[in-house]
Amino acid sequence: MNKPVIQKPIKVENSPIPGSRKVYETGVRFADIRVPFREVALHESANEPPVTIYDSSGPYTDENFTPDISKGLPRLREQWIVARGDVEYIEAREVKPEDNGNVSEGALAPQFPNLPKVLRAKDGKSVTQLEYARRGVITPEMEYIAIRENLRRAQDAEVLRDGEDFGAEIPDYITPEFVRDEVARGRAIIPANINHPEVEPMIIGRNFLVKINANIGNSAVTSSMEEEVEKMVWAIRWGADNVMDLSTGRNIHNIREWIIRNSPAPIGTVPIYQALEKVGGVAEDLTWEVYRDTLIEQAQQGVDYFTIHAGVRLSYVHLTAKRVTGIVSRGGSIMAKWCLAHHKENFLYTHFEEICDIMRAYDVSFSLGDGLRPGSIADANDAAQFAELETLGELTQIAWKKGCQVMIEGPGHVPMHKIKANMDKQLKTCGEAPFYTLGPLTTDIAPGYDHITSGIGAAMIGWFGTSMLCYVTPKEHLGLPNRDDVKTGVITYKISAHAADLAKGHPGAQAWDDAMSRARFEFRWQDQFNLALDPETARAFHDETLPKEAHKTAHFCSMCGPKFCSMKISQEVRDYSATLTDNERADIENGMADMSQKFRALGSAIDVPAE
Amino acid sequence: MNKPVIQKPIKVENSPIPGSRKVYETGVRFADIRVPFREVALHESANEPPVTIYDSSGPYTDENFTPDISKGLPRLREQWIVARGDVEYIEAREVKPEDNGNVSEGALAPQFPNLPKVLRAKDGKSVTQLEYARRGVITPEMEYIAIRENLRRAQDAEVLRDGEDFGAEIPDYITPEFVRDEVARGRAIIPANINHPEVEPMIIGRNFLVKINANIGNSAVTSSMEEEVEKMVWAIRWGADNVMDLSTGRNIHNIREWIIRNSPAPIGTVPIYQALEKVGGVAEDLTWEVYRDTLIEQAQQGVDYFTIHAGVRLSYVHLTAKRVTGIVSRGGSIMAKWCLAHHKENFLYTHFEEICDIMRAYDVSFSLGDGLRPGSIADANDAAQFAELETLGELTQIAWKKGCQVMIEGPGHVPMHKIKANMDKQLKTCGEAPFYTLGPLTTDIAPGYDHITSGIGAAMIGWFGTSMLCYVTPKEHLGLPNRDDVKTGVITYKISAHAADLAKGHPGAQAWDDAMSRARFEFRWQDQFNLALDPETARAFHDETLPKEAHKTAHFCSMCGPKFCSMKISQEVRDYSATLTDNERADIENGMADMSQKFRALGSAIDVPAE
Repeated sequence: MNKPVIQKPIKVENSPIPGSRKVYETGVRFADIRVPFREVALHESANEPPVTIYDSSGPYTDENFTPDISKGLPRLREQWIVARGDVEYIEAREVKPEDNGNVSEGALAPQFPNLPKVLRAKDGKSVTQLEYARRGVITPEMEYIAIRENLRRAQDAEVLRDGEDFGAEIPDYITPEFVRDEVARGRAIIPANINHPEVEPMIIGRNFLVKINANIGNSAVTSSMEEEVEKMVWAIRWGADNVMDLSTGRNIHNIREWIIRNSPAPIGTVPIYQALEKVGGVAEDLTWEVYRDTLIEQAQQGVDYFTIHAGVRLSYVHLTAKRVTGIVSRGGSIMAKWCLAHHKENFLYTHFEEICDIMRAYDVSFSLGDGLRPGSIADANDAAQFAELETLGELTQIAWKKGCQVMIEGPGHVPMHKIKANMDKQLKTCGEAPFYTLGPLTTDIAPGYDHITSGIGAAMIGWFGTSMLCYVTPKEHLGLPNRDDVKTGVITYKISAHAADLAKGHPGAQAWDDAMSRARFEFRWQDQFNLALDPETARAFHDETLPKEAHKTAHFCSMCGPKFCSMKISQEVRDYSATLTDNERADIENGMADMSQKFRALGSAIDVPAE
Repeated sequence: MNKPVIQKPIKVENSPIPGSRKVYETGVRFADIRVPFREVALHESANEPPVTIYDSSGPYTDENFTPDISKGLPRLREQWIVARGDVEYIEAREVKPEDNGNVSEGALAPQFPNLPKVLRAKDGKSVTQLEYARRGVITPEMEYIAIRENLRRAQDAEVLRDGEDFGAEIPDYITPEFVRDEVARGRAIIPANINHPEVEPMIIGRNFLVKINANIGNSAVTSSMEEEVEKMVWAIRWGADNVMDLSTGRNIHNIREWIIRNSPAPIGTVPIYQALEKVGGVAEDLTWEVYRDTLIEQAQQGVDYFTIHAGVRLSYVHLTAKRVTGIVSRGGSIMAKWCLAHHKENFLYTHFEEICDIMRAYDVSFSLGDGLRPGSIADANDAAQFAELETLGELTQIAWKKGCQVMIEGPGHVPMHKIKANMDKQLKTCGEAPFYTLGPLTTDIAPGYDHITSGIGAAMIGWFGTSMLCYVTPKEHLGLPNRDDVKTGVITYKISAHAADLAKGHPGAQAWDDAMSRARFEFRWQDQFNLALDPETARAFHDETLPKEAHKTAHFCSMCGPKFCSMKISQEVRDYSATLTDNERADIENGMADMSQKFRALGSAIDVPAE
């Protein structure tokens, strides 16, 4: 049996991001809204306002917050949810031994000590953000998101919009009304189970900032709940907007409770994994009853979205037979095996409306799984993949009719020239429901570097319109990611997501890049570190070559050294050019005047002496 | 003064790539041609022929070769060059103290002990591969390249061609005649100075495999020649097709000799760096005479291509004044400073034809430098950048008239939506001369991860038509790359280049991916490691989770464990489906027949017991 990678000593990391300060923006319609941001103050010589960066890290990076994972996070949405008057506290489904894999007393992970009461929609009430949006209701979640997406830009601020958005409709400024409208149209979702009030609301949609998901979870063996909570906190610290718990081992139920109670990010799961555990890992033995019970179990705990592989239809399975890598989705292969063994249609497909009814009662969002996604370059965009996508389109319409929020999962392994076809087909087939892709990996030849092979595809498909990118770590295809792998995967995907925002021309996206570039040009090293996606690594790499504190203010870098520096020279060029009159400029273009003296005087004035 | 990162104990790495064997293909027209390849034999259970991979690593990975860097590499092209009868041995330019930065006796790096005689074209003779190609001559270099690009595919082998090549003209099979024709048209170059006979010929062109360049060189301080040679060997080991020596410190001349004599890869330089050293680092003091002398010095040593910033014209300089990051190219800013200080036109521009005459005499290729490339997202595709590109187009025509080979350097920092415009404009402006880009970086916010921010842009522009990608390491903008950084940069760029080859539909490119994917599907772990771009890392990552040797043959991986494995299940699906008759298949699609028994029998037959 494989062992999980041993983690460094468990500690829920709760230090602030170096060089950043946690700030909050309050609501207008809803006074108790406090939206967190990461603020980077710049050196006074910059004479610039602080830079505001989207912050997914939760209270853990707030110096005024002391985490206690046995208490869980503040339940900031609880009053909003209860105040709507359409939910009721119910008797929670009783935890059964099989929920934790029938683990023996001794090996049972402790139950979360501070279990909340369970909420469910009152009979006949629909409590999904989609239904509120359709009814014209702007929820606190919607205003929270509007504030969050605007990154503290003024509504009348001038915006740079030179991107190519391929038909997206990104406004210059996000209003709560715009959020409501996008959710109502099904073009965006707000994953926020009424039993996960600890969530800091976020949105997944093509007309908003591109989001990323990180996966955690133990694998076939017990891992401690502290360890999983720590992984979750570590992932959101570096930028994960969502976290999926893909645990397949024992203690799944109890560990999940600890994760959800301590997560400010929406938590997704693949319920079929736990259902399979409940039937001893034998796919053929799965039943609708076991699965249904698992959905209710997880919905009551507060899982925000379920990956459901209802598109793996019996008649599609043999389409994968000639593939190079067959079916690589775990959920997909479980259902394929079930379908063939019983020679029946996928029970997730036949019971889809009942699944909708359960998920609507807790506002669990659908993440319609691509169980037939390609697992290799050779299998990209084939008949099996696109047949399933057509079915996911049908199911989207049913879920919407039932008032449920939906996003669609996508590949996988796709060479660059076949990526856009995936996006175009998904938009058309699934009525612009948000797309949520794994990479895609653009080549198969680099195990050990699949965060990079996939980061390339992720940036491109994010640009084309994918709303959330599921990260891939360097351990993909090889082993279980450790703490460093999780960080590397998250940072890589933040790069892909931001590169996509820039290319889409998302208003305000470029402000971050420009602040960094000005800091570079002016040799404000501290500002460069503080503005970095990963301040710790940026500083460490700089200090490897130039360790002295004095170098943090030096007007040169290690590439050229002080004697010759291109940045310094172009600073001189700028200063010089600034002194030119239009006539002088014209003279230069005619190459006539001699103003070399003027330049020499200027140039020498700002020379930096070598040490 | 900044110090270079201390390298691990100097050793010219000469072990074979793990799991690979060095093989050679001989010429047909020229019997003494021996083209090296990396061959990966697969496990017998695969029942597949070995996989052939392009090999840039030189003799160092040949178990039958024992490197002696004081002797240098075999001079395999010498006879080809001399046999043409158009070159003559000349009195070499005498080495001057300033060539090594006037370093004191004690600090002088030892001269290469085995200095070769210097060759130059006889008067009136033109010895460039371009001129041979124009005259219809197929040189041994051209046949060598044809063999190398075909990766040992049979001429009549069936090829998969489903890429999008944006108007490139990649044939199914590369003939020596095709190589000649592409070189004659200026659409490809063969960087191969007649004084660098150690070069294993390679080609840079849009209709060939995408190549990558790695930079080495000491920075403003002395570094030993062993250290630089070791860096070069390390870079080509992992896949660098070309290496640029960007040294700016002392001992430049002597260290360069050691690098060239030991490099099977073409070596490029930026002569203005050494010229600047010769005038004490004061840009204003540069003269044509000093520069001219430096060109001759380096051409006689065997440098294969020169970056020449002749496009930085006086009248363009002020166009950079309003930029966020001004001029970030070292060579560009040197020339800008010179132009402004003297208020004269760039002397590289005014003396361009004389430069051509020098380079033609040794077959040094032009790499026309983009001295005004953007250094930030904000400055991408601006007036200064494109004004220079227009001039590079003019200069290309002049160089071609003079019989010189030319490639064009490109950016830099460019958001994804502005990348294709760079490629399209370069093709149009520069008559399809090969494009050679630095990245581009697709965002500025991730110092410490710029191999990734740029690997994304590199893959895309490579797909669009760039012929060679200049790597970026994780230390970009922060410090000097160490050994690990060089490897990470090279591997990242091999990923970008291969992803581009796949997307262009380069024949044979996908064979590597497919071999890897089949190995994955069949759990041939050793084959997966051996086929990897970086076998050492792939194996190490796998063993972190599953260290036992038994796991190398296990029919499961650490992601799911043995009890449940999607690959295993889809193997069952495949076996099952293979047994279906067309009628049965039709039955399934109508969902009528009951063949579950049949499947169960099959499925259970290949179950893998848990350990």
